Amino acid sequence: MVFNIMTLFPTLYKEFLNTSIIGRAVKNDILKFNLYNIRDYSIDKNKRVDDYVYGGGDGMLISADPIYRCYKDIIKNGNTKMIYMSPRGKLLNSNMAREFANNDSITVLCGHYEGIDERAIKLTSAEEVSIGDYILTGGELPSMILIDVVVRFVKGVLSNENSANEESFTDNLLEYPQYTRPSIYENLKVPEVLLSGDHKKIAEWRLTESKKITKENRPDLYEKYIKTNGGIYE
Amino acid sequence: MVFNIMTLFPTLYKEFLNTSIIGRAVKNDILKFNLYNIRDYSIDKNKRVDDYVYGGGDGMLISADPIYRCYKDIIKNGNTKMIYMSPRGKLLNSNMAREFANNDSITVLCGHYEGIDERAIKLTSAEEVSIGDYILTGGELPSMILIDVVVRFVKGVLSNENSANEESFTDNLLEYPQYTRPSIYENLKVPEVLLSGDHKKIAEWRLTESKKITKENRPDLYEKYIKTNGGIYE
Repeated sequence: MVFNIMTLFPTLYKEFLNTSIIGRAVKNDILKFNLYNIRDYSIDKNKRVDDYVYGGGDGMLISADPIYRCYKDIIKNGNTKMIYMSPRGKLLNSNMAREFANNDSITVLCGHYEGIDERAIKLTSAEEVSIGDYILTGGELPSMILIDVVVRFVKGVLSNENSANEESFTDNLLEYPQYTRPSIYENLKVPEVLLSGDHKKIAEWRLTESKKITKENRPDLYEKYIKTNGGIYE
Repeated sequence: MVFNIMTLFPTLYKEFLNTSIIGRAVKNDILKFNLYNIRDYSIDKNKRVDDYVYGGGDGMLISADPIYRCYKDIIKNGNTKMIYMSPRGKLLNSNMAREFANNDSITVLCGHYEGIDERAIKLTSAEEVSIGDYILTGGELPSMILIDVVVRFVKGVLSNENSANEESFTDNLLEYPQYTRPSIYENLKVPEVLLSGDHKKIAEWRLTESKKITKENRPDLYEKYIKTNGGIYE
């Protein structure tokens, strides 16, 4: 699977693409990343890429031209699914990521400053995707989030034992507390049931804890869980 | 404002802390970042930090001990607001970020692998924060998202003209389309009204477009907008 990244800050990606699961998948030729600096596609003599907003407003926008030139260069290599990281987009979730993972090529466009000229979105047929309801400096961190979430659904990126855990958000429950050795640390004991070896009781305890924490931290998810399971709100 | 970051992958932060708005705020002594490698606090002879999950389950957890040792080292420098990046936490939003920005010191704990021993959360009194409903490889990218969102509310980090834009998510409407020069590009024209100089009409057009895109991409936000404005769902 190929990811093309269109950005004004390509150096931000260096460590990210070399570390942990993604670094390993790149070494194993499962993933390939191409970085495109939008500034390289500016025909301005000072390589300027931004300009004032029509109709008034603070800040600067990235012009359509360098983005569209960069895009035309990328699609010389074949079709690609275009995604623009934007607080205006649909909210990223696990199901959306699983579908994105079916593409052979994804191109992620990262804005900066106040955003980009709307025509760049239209000309590149980009789908707008948001990672959450907060304002960030640019699309670079969100693009890394998108990549990290999507590649976990690409075959060969995770070892099999980990893949199972991708279910986490599909049942609308948050994870139960987990413990590792020692069984007593700073006077805090691991709950007895987890040391019992009784798998049925352990599963029951974990479900109860998951419900408790979901109800507390994410009443919106808990409501979905209750609806999906045909239960009543306890 | 000081940020302490507890992580197994400190090198991931290098470019992020040097680039754009954050890089400038560090140079201007408005922000300070201290990176702590959790592995440095392991007393295991091989500097191992992870172990199996009590009660069974895939993957490995980070033990409580190196995290707690690291934490005790950090609080020698004074009080700090502890945050643990976790899909189990409350969802990050602009209002939460604005409140975090009132702290003089924030410490962000990043998990990796399957997570961390629950007792590490308890012993450090960490608040759990999630950036969205998707599964990531570790807490490092989420911590950068948190930092990027929070520092925009710290005085002096943004120039004044940009600060105004932080309102974006408070009115529950997504942003209207924006355009910059040229007025015609690839046969696509900038909407006439934006060239008219009529500020009242421009404001009306922008509100209409904001409503349209919010209704389309985020019916959940649009519903909030309608409720807040005492209107009816159009």
